[in-house]
Amino acid sequence: MTATNQQIVLASRPDKEAVAANFRLVSTPVPALADNQVLVRHHFLSLDPYMRGRMNAGKSYAQPQPLDQVMIGGTAGEVVESRHAGFKAGDKVVGMGGWQQYSVVDASQPGTLRKVDTAHIPLSAYLGAVGMPGVTAWYGLVKICTPKEGETIVVSAASGAVGGAVGQLAKVRGCRAVGIAGGPDKCRYVVDELGFDACIDYKAHRDPKALYAALKEATPDGVDGYFENVGGLMLDTVLARMNAFGRVALCGMISGYDGQPIPLTHPQLILQSRLKLEGFIVSEHMGVWPEALKELGTLVATGKLKYRETVAQGIESAPEAFLGLLKGQNFGKQLVKLV
Amino acid sequence: MTATNQQIVLASRPDKEAVAANFRLVSTPVPALADNQVLVRHHFLSLDPYMRGRMNAGKSYAQPQPLDQVMIGGTAGEVVESRHAGFKAGDKVVGMGGWQQYSVVDASQPGTLRKVDTAHIPLSAYLGAVGMPGVTAWYGLVKICTPKEGETIVVSAASGAVGGAVGQLAKVRGCRAVGIAGGPDKCRYVVDELGFDACIDYKAHRDPKALYAALKEATPDGVDGYFENVGGLMLDTVLARMNAFGRVALCGMISGYDGQPIPLTHPQLILQSRLKLEGFIVSEHMGVWPEALKELGTLVATGKLKYRETVAQGIESAPEAFLGLLKGQNFGKQLVKLV
Repeated sequence: MTATNQQIVLASRPDKEAVAANFRLVSTPVPALADNQVLVRHHFLSLDPYMRGRMNAGKSYAQPQPLDQVMIGGTAGEVVESRHAGFKAGDKVVGMGGWQQYSVVDASQPGTLRKVDTAHIPLSAYLGAVGMPGVTAWYGLVKICTPKEGETIVVSAASGAVGGAVGQLAKVRGCRAVGIAGGPDKCRYVVDELGFDACIDYKAHRDPKALYAALKEATPDGVDGYFENVGGLMLDTVLARMNAFGRVALCGMISGYDGQPIPLTHPQLILQSRLKLEGFIVSEHMGVWPEALKELGTLVATGKLKYRETVAQGIESAPEAFLGLLKGQNFGKQLVKLV
Repeated sequence: MTATNQQIVLASRPDKEAVAANFRLVSTPVPALADNQVLVRHHFLSLDPYMRGRMNAGKSYAQPQPLDQVMIGGTAGEVVESRHAGFKAGDKVVGMGGWQQYSVVDASQPGTLRKVDTAHIPLSAYLGAVGMPGVTAWYGLVKICTPKEGETIVVSAASGAVGGAVGQLAKVRGCRAVGIAGGPDKCRYVVDELGFDACIDYKAHRDPKALYAALKEATPDGVDGYFENVGGLMLDTVLARMNAFGRVALCGMISGYDGQPIPLTHPQLILQSRLKLEGFIVSEHMGVWPEALKELGTLVATGKLKYRETVAQGIESAPEAFLGLLKGQNFGKQLVKLV
């Protein structure tokens, strides 16, 4: 192989808002393989909000992305050459290949590369509903929100890869599922296609009182579990609507990534309503992945778990697609198609 | 009996800060007993921060205290007359007799009156270390902070009835116990008498950076569990010092009772450090009381759980003593002695 590998590296850290100039496209030759290495050609790159946190130097919940190195990210692709007995050319695989066309993986390290079955599940789904976003939804809902039949579960960013799965998994468990999303198109999709019971368009309710009123109408029995992908005003508003002993899974607080912390205005509600709030990162709970992936895979294969993808074309489009994701311009799971 | 019963009733709800004029002293005759009733003469009245919440009309975690009725509150005293087979004159009892000299209790209602042993434990301790404050400390520490040997536990209002027990129970479990209290006298008491490893005087560190620096010095390995009795700046500061997977028991947020909510400035820390925050009210967890009281009683009887009391004299002193408690003027458990 003497192919050229186009890559996106982190050129600089964002001052406040992330911008395209923080990224740089570079080309390097694909190296020859050593023993146990596998060369993967990426078909899809996954773009996810957590990457914004990695771009900062400061303390976040994970190591910062090093400068001048390939941006990290989940990838789905095909083995083109293998010097490891467990993989052969043509195998469909999922890994953390990063923002580049090819990756060379040491397949002797457990967990770096996973073969997947694309007979019943599309390859790209392993980056979404049957991948990290799906398991994220599953963990936060099942293990933190602990939904019981008849309860009301609310999720923000409901049309996204994580949020959409949260609501559908809640419906499977006999709950009322209420989404929060931006714009009438996303809300219609959440209700009509994903089967949520209601969806609140936060763009139509910009001030806290209006948002609360809309939430109240959509949750006549209050809120028992909240899956938070957004933070800021959303969290404040939903906390005020929580029933006693409600559970809040904190998965994303995207509105705070740009450096300005957004205060929680009424923390005393946690005491008054005896709430439990818990932050989590799904990669720290690998023990649940098999159980979660089994349910998610079955639901996708049988058409019971639906999702939508926004697909950008070509590695060079990744930075703009990522910045759009941070602004909510994607619709469903944001991918970059590389072949 | 034709004794006169002096009582304190709630005369009006606080505008913002609670004031003496919100209370009124009244006298009523002690009524004759009906079947199953017991007349208790109160020796001690317990004053507790939660009472401030009950004085408001708005939604709190409990029913508001009705106007013109005797203020609720825990009491310890002696049976003076009984028409219930389970009690006889001279029995020492604990109940929720309220801010008054005598109460008439229907002893056929389970849980309204509890006989206590004063051979090894002083009567007043049943309102403190071996009563509701002690069980509050026990529940929040054991069930929410889930301390493991070698971990660091921080508690605010550390010289109080709840806080003092939290730190001593943490020490029993092999933890580093760090208190936060107001003033050098209270801090000295917390370390020298209660045996905490360190105590931070928040009055000597008024701005957030100074408070954080003092906390950092006192917790070289970070904070694994935090028992919050105060809220506001304390909570903000300790959250920034929590280790990954830290647990926070929210028991009191006294600084918010006067109507002004105090925002939490960096809620994203809950996600970044994968924290669990949980609000609780000990009366909703009656199942743990026997186990908790057994440990607390044994520790008090053997001198291993220490506490201090501030005792006001006479029912008429209750309002001022209560207002002082809200301002942190008490030292240890605030009681009113009625005999």
